[in-house]
Amino acid sequence: MDFAYSPRCQEYLDKLRAFMDARVYPNESTYAEQLAGFGSNRWQVIPIIEELKEQAKKAGLWNLFLPDSDQGAGLSNLDYAPLAEEMGRALWSSEVFNCSAPDTGNMEVLTRYGTKEQQDKWLKPLLAGEIRSAFLMTEPDVASSDATNIQCAIRRDGDDYVINGRKWWSSGAGDPRCKIYILMGKTDPDAEKHRQQSMILVPADTPGVTVKRHLPVFGYDDAPHGHMEVELKDVRVPASNMLLGEGRGFEIAQGRLGPGRIHHCMRTIGAAERALELMVRRSMSRVAFGKRIADQSVWHHRIAQARIDIEKTRLLTLKAAWMMDTVGNKVAQKEIAMIKVAAPQMALKVIDDAIQVFGGAGVSADTPLAHSFAGIRTLRLADGPDEVHERAIARMEMKRLSNEG
Amino acid sequence: MDFAYSPRCQEYLDKLRAFMDARVYPNESTYAEQLAGFGSNRWQVIPIIEELKEQAKKAGLWNLFLPDSDQGAGLSNLDYAPLAEEMGRALWSSEVFNCSAPDTGNMEVLTRYGTKEQQDKWLKPLLAGEIRSAFLMTEPDVASSDATNIQCAIRRDGDDYVINGRKWWSSGAGDPRCKIYILMGKTDPDAEKHRQQSMILVPADTPGVTVKRHLPVFGYDDAPHGHMEVELKDVRVPASNMLLGEGRGFEIAQGRLGPGRIHHCMRTIGAAERALELMVRRSMSRVAFGKRIADQSVWHHRIAQARIDIEKTRLLTLKAAWMMDTVGNKVAQKEIAMIKVAAPQMALKVIDDAIQVFGGAGVSADTPLAHSFAGIRTLRLADGPDEVHERAIARMEMKRLSNEG
Amino acid sequence: MDFAYSPRCQEYLDKLRAFMDARVYPNESTYAEQLAGFGSNRWQVIPIIEELKEQAKKAGLWNLFLPDSDQGAGLSNLDYAPLAEEMGRALWSSEVFNCSAPDTGNMEVLTRYGTKEQQDKWLKPLLAGEIRSAFLMTEPDVASSDATNIQCAIRRDGDDYVINGRKWWSSGAGDPRCKIYILMGKTDPDAEKHRQQSMILVPADTPGVTVKRHLPVFGYDDAPHGHMEVELKDVRVPASNMLLGEGRGFEIAQGRLGPGRIHHCMRTIGAAERALELMVRRSMSRVAFGKRIADQSVWHHRIAQARIDIEKTRLLTLKAAWMMDTVGNKVAQKEIAMIKVAAPQMALKVIDDAIQVFGGAGVSADTPLAHSFAGIRTLRLADGPDEVHERAIARMEMKRLSNEG
Amino acid sequence: MDFAYSPRCQEYLDKLRAFMDARVYPNESTYAEQLAGFGSNRWQVIPIIEELKEQAKKAGLWNLFLPDSDQGAGLSNLDYAPLAEEMGRALWSSEVFNCSAPDTGNMEVLTRYGTKEQQDKWLKPLLAGEIRSAFLMTEPDVASSDATNIQCAIRRDGDDYVINGRKWWSSGAGDPRCKIYILMGKTDPDAEKHRQQSMILVPADTPGVTVKRHLPVFGYDDAPHGHMEVELKDVRVPASNMLLGEGRGFEIAQGRLGPGRIHHCMRTIGAAERALELMVRRSMSRVAFGKRIADQSVWHHRIAQARIDIEKTRLLTLKAAWMMDTVGNKVAQKEIAMIKVAAPQMALKVIDDAIQVFGGAGVSADTPLAHSFAGIRTLRLADGPDEVHERAIARMEMKRLSNEG
Repeated sequence: MDFAYSPRCQEYLDKLRAFMDARVYPNESTYAEQLAGFGSNRWQVIPIIEELKEQAKKAGLWNLFLPDSDQGAGLSNLDYAPLAEEMGRALWSSEVFNCSAPDTGNMEVLTRYGTKEQQDKWLKPLLAGEIRSAFLMTEPDVASSDATNIQCAIRRDGDDYVINGRKWWSSGAGDPRCKIYILMGKTDPDAEKHRQQSMILVPADTPGVTVKRHLPVFGYDDAPHGHMEVELKDVRVPASNMLLGEGRGFEIAQGRLGPGRIHHCMRTIGAAERALELMVRRSMSRVAFGKRIADQSVWHHRIAQARIDIEKTRLLTLKAAWMMDTVGNKVAQKEIAMIKVAAPQMALKVIDDAIQVFGGAGVSADTPLAHSFAGIRTLRLADGPDEVHERAIARMEMKRLSNEG
Repeated sequence: MDFAYSPRCQEYLDKLRAFMDARVYPNESTYAEQLAGFGSNRWQVIPIIEELKEQAKKAGLWNLFLPDSDQGAGLSNLDYAPLAEEMGRALWSSEVFNCSAPDTGNMEVLTRYGTKEQQDKWLKPLLAGEIRSAFLMTEPDVASSDATNIQCAIRRDGDDYVINGRKWWSSGAGDPRCKIYILMGKTDPDAEKHRQQSMILVPADTPGVTVKRHLPVFGYDDAPHGHMEVELKDVRVPASNMLLGEGRGFEIAQGRLGPGRIHHCMRTIGAAERALELMVRRSMSRVAFGKRIADQSVWHHRIAQARIDIEKTRLLTLKAAWMMDTVGNKVAQKEIAMIKVAAPQMALKVIDDAIQVFGGAGVSADTPLAHSFAGIRTLRLADGPDEVHERAIARMEMKRLSNEG
Repeated sequence: MDFAYSPRCQEYLDKLRAFMDARVYPNESTYAEQLAGFGSNRWQVIPIIEELKEQAKKAGLWNLFLPDSDQGAGLSNLDYAPLAEEMGRALWSSEVFNCSAPDTGNMEVLTRYGTKEQQDKWLKPLLAGEIRSAFLMTEPDVASSDATNIQCAIRRDGDDYVINGRKWWSSGAGDPRCKIYILMGKTDPDAEKHRQQSMILVPADTPGVTVKRHLPVFGYDDAPHGHMEVELKDVRVPASNMLLGEGRGFEIAQGRLGPGRIHHCMRTIGAAERALELMVRRSMSRVAFGKRIADQSVWHHRIAQARIDIEKTRLLTLKAAWMMDTVGNKVAQKEIAMIKVAAPQMALKVIDDAIQVFGGAGVSADTPLAHSFAGIRTLRLADGPDEVHERAIARMEMKRLSNEG
Repeated sequence: MDFAYSPRCQEYLDKLRAFMDARVYPNESTYAEQLAGFGSNRWQVIPIIEELKEQAKKAGLWNLFLPDSDQGAGLSNLDYAPLAEEMGRALWSSEVFNCSAPDTGNMEVLTRYGTKEQQDKWLKPLLAGEIRSAFLMTEPDVASSDATNIQCAIRRDGDDYVINGRKWWSSGAGDPRCKIYILMGKTDPDAEKHRQQSMILVPADTPGVTVKRHLPVFGYDDAPHGHMEVELKDVRVPASNMLLGEGRGFEIAQGRLGPGRIHHCMRTIGAAERALELMVRRSMSRVAFGKRIADQSVWHHRIAQARIDIEKTRLLTLKAAWMMDTVGNKVAQKEIAMIKVAAPQMALKVIDDAIQVFGGAGVSADTPLAHSFAGIRTLRLADGPDEVHERAIARMEMKRLSNEG
């Protein structure tokens, strides 16, 4: 259980931090201005992102996320963790390094389960940062946390599959660069429970696909990325778009979600770390009732609790990453569920306190805090609400003690 | 300490509830659609609001807030409390009844402290709902919770006053109907601490007044109302615009803030009550892991705690209102401070749990929850952050026990 | 909903406070010393208690709890509430006024449901404070919060009933003055669910009754009162000892528990109020790192939150009392459940913070805090754990909204 | 940052667990019975402890705590951590392995700072488990968390020192085997702030030493160990009893407290782990309202949160231990402060939830939970209250960011 940063990781981290300092933080306002400049026509590529992507590629900071792959940097989960944390400090910076969701998960699926043909067509441009992708799983009408509930129909028809259904919270589907969806749907309602689902590739421009609307998160549209509701009406794709084979959707989902969850947690820790930094700096710069806020004990309490909870959560995340590397995602499922619950819970408290010390600036766009809070609040819901993961953890505890007798 | 609803209050409440059911809730989507229809040109009057205002006037549901006045309904604070709570259930409904902040507070100031001329010019159209107003107090550069920190300069120059300063979180100043500001500034930096400040009327169209930008709240622009940053550069108004006299700003502020705080608390309780109602209904309509959410004990816990905390907070708010009516705002200052802290804290927890049971719909615009959360989060900061009020309460406790010996 | 103290209540309250100041608080150490003087032979009557009882009787402060009765003071629940709160400030003071559990509940049962003969034999000496009593309901082997689980058998045999079973948490059964038990048991296991149980009078000295052991609460034996485990083996009592009739135990329990719960809540609020007072005074008398604790903002936060939560909980308790008086215990059941959950939760937090400001003195016997904490912690379990009451509240909320449609 | 258990640690851990299973847990009731058998004469050696000590010695499980020493096992802090955690599962088991406070800290002081003569006289019998010791630091009259406040006077008089003062919370001083005190007092009130204090050896039987009383923790006397108030009146000891030299008390305290804190944290984690185990087992064995408690979601929530918080806190404790081993106690001071705050906070919540699921058994002596709660509650006060450590952590955060600029 060695959590020290390896020399390789440290080298990337130094480079990444230098890049963040030199190019990302100074451009946070540029990003906001370019987006604001679009007026109401916000679903456009933001130029500074494309510029920074080129620079990141040149700096060798590209596709860092793929564990033990010959694509990208080939870092382990443990090596990638501090890098993802660093990226989490700035809301949109992951994309700069081609490390942003849902592309990372989709690239992993294509790497592991795609055919040569599927990889040539979709994985290559994704790895190159030329196109983006979406993952169509959640449905508005059912509790999708229970994957067996999913209703979208994928029906075989000759050499094609025909898809009918409605998906929402399809993140990234608002982006004009988003060209491909990985869709989860039901091929056989009569099969054994975990063999009913399949995953299939659906090009975004297939007839019958309609992006109905975007879903704001609190008041943020997260343009041009967005979280969309997508209707699929008699959408026809060739049978060769099926991933791995009919009935294997659940299996792929299991493989996809572990890394996705840990990446989110790592970034969340970075967001909390930045919020704490902002909170501390603000407390040192403001005076109320004749005393620096930094000298008021209620802020000692909040700052100390924030530091403690960040440290504890980071260590648990590193442990989960280390287990994924050493014993595999399946054995690490309890640890992954634990950080899935713990990281957002921790970060929301830290960010909320940081907002409090900033007053009005904290809820507005003058700090990244409110936007960060809104995004992380969704992590308590996305990919299974807290309650589902807590149930899983509790049942694993019971099973362990039952076995011990 | 009789908190029963008086017959008069009950009569208004019945009428108000009928109006909400018949005209407000069914038009929540109309409001959203009309606003969306403006595209990026959002700082416009929303037609449905003006329609509903006419209907409310006809129904006798107009200017309900003015305590013991011959203007409006002349209700006591205690009588008004359940009405304000009811309005708090729908984000924008207070305006329909001409009961929305900051106009209510401004009308109260003009009623109590305005000259006949000031009242004719500004109070009359405000009471008629023809214009709106803003209150310019908070400044970006100082901890404004300590009112003595305020820096905006009001300098006498012949028959005029000349104003220079910068204000922010000037709510409502984004509205095209907003015609008049009540501004707090410093007339005499050398006077005794609580005699340095004055309040003065500044017409919105006075040369030198510039609305610099709007400040979003968790991504919401709250258009057309808005929270604005306003620059005042050599703004010249006639000396007769002074309210009550030089050096009396602090005194007016004290009188203004008590009722304003309690109105916010009442509305906040209404928002929490609605969130609980949504939470309970959702829990009865959704199934996860083979069981209604309503049958899962963690939701029993959350629903019960929500009901308990709403009831407790409502009673404390009624007590504060009753004290304001019977012993005056000054004696009631501890109770006012207590609900100022307690109501948002309670509501944020209830709303957050409601968001959780809704999943994605909870953070989006498909429920009023996220917007409600954002608005109420600002109440922990506006008009003094929690910490300032907690300090005041603690010191009153200490003083009480010191006197008892 | 008038919560003002009536003149009658205020008169009693003034008298009670004077008595507490003159005779109770100054004897808190006497009580401790007399008990300590017993050595390990602690199950004895503490002389100071008997002395104070005589004085309280003379002062007309006796049997204040019986609502609307011609026994005792005949106060309403609302009138009694502030008196019970006052008594709650000192751990053992309720007994001084013959207002302590479980005697109050038992006297109420005998008053309402006892025959003339039963009342002469047991109610009279209880009202006179000559004997004490216990209530034998909870059993070690089942979740007794669900009263239908109770297993103790009451079997008719000629003119007698024969009782077999095991009870625990029989509070007061350790006291040498405890002469009579009210026991809940099963007369007919085949009857309809709520008609299986009966209540019967069991004199403490009946053959077959064995007090097996006392159960400490966080190390406190609460001698001479105590919480006992009692074995009943072929215990034979005359049939005339049955209360109200076979199968009516559940009905009596329902009637008994409402007032019992509210008395506990009132006393709990008194305990919290005293803890806050101690916390504030201590904060004003101690210096750490060059500053009075009273000037440190984390204590402002805690003191203010304590004051807020005490006030809110007191108001809810008063409302429950007022409802019991005006619409009856059955209609008030939601409010009773709410304070049953809310009062201990509130008080434990206040007391815990008070312990913290006292340091070592807080956990020892140098303050009443730790003992108070321990006693109130049991209230989250006694007479139904929080979870049972939260479930009931949640289900009432659901029912209400279902009916509204 | 490698937290894996070394082979050496794992070997000890296996042996220790086997010993706990075979000899400690089965004797928990023996311990209670032997103590109860003493009646009110409780300050006696409990025979089972001495028996088990002999067996532990033979099993090579003796003096495991001394880091990198040739005394004892010579384990690192990181190696010792899981062993201390294991011991923390049973309230009194540390003493069986001669690993209990305050002896461990005192032995460490004597090992590091004692003269040959001092070591022969006191360290040897301590290491052999023949005598016990106490640490006299805290005083009733001052906030001793600020060590510079200490007032007990140590005055040089010829070849002796003469000591006058009053100490409390002198844990272990109630034990008849307690023969030696390490006392902290003031030798030079005029010296520079951190050079005023000294530590000196005071044999328990020195004339002028009076154990005035024991201080209960909640209702526990913790006999025969106990927490005592000790009066020192003209207590005369030879000058050779001084440790390290006059004015070096603060320096010794700093060295002593780090390891002491981490040992407490490790044991606290063990106590929490046992509470969770009890909570889970109980939830699987009880039925309420027709359903196992283990199937009720509020208990899923509590069990999962307990598991998460235990894991997070354990990792942080291991990190602190690892830092003490690799970079020293001084550099690790932030991590030590963090776990000092975090571990009791975590454990109290877990134990409180466990109490709740047990009902009455939870607060009584039928489970170890209430006693464990009481003991761990004192850890939020002992050796500096939370507030002192939170202040230290916050200030280190500020300093770090100030340096970064």
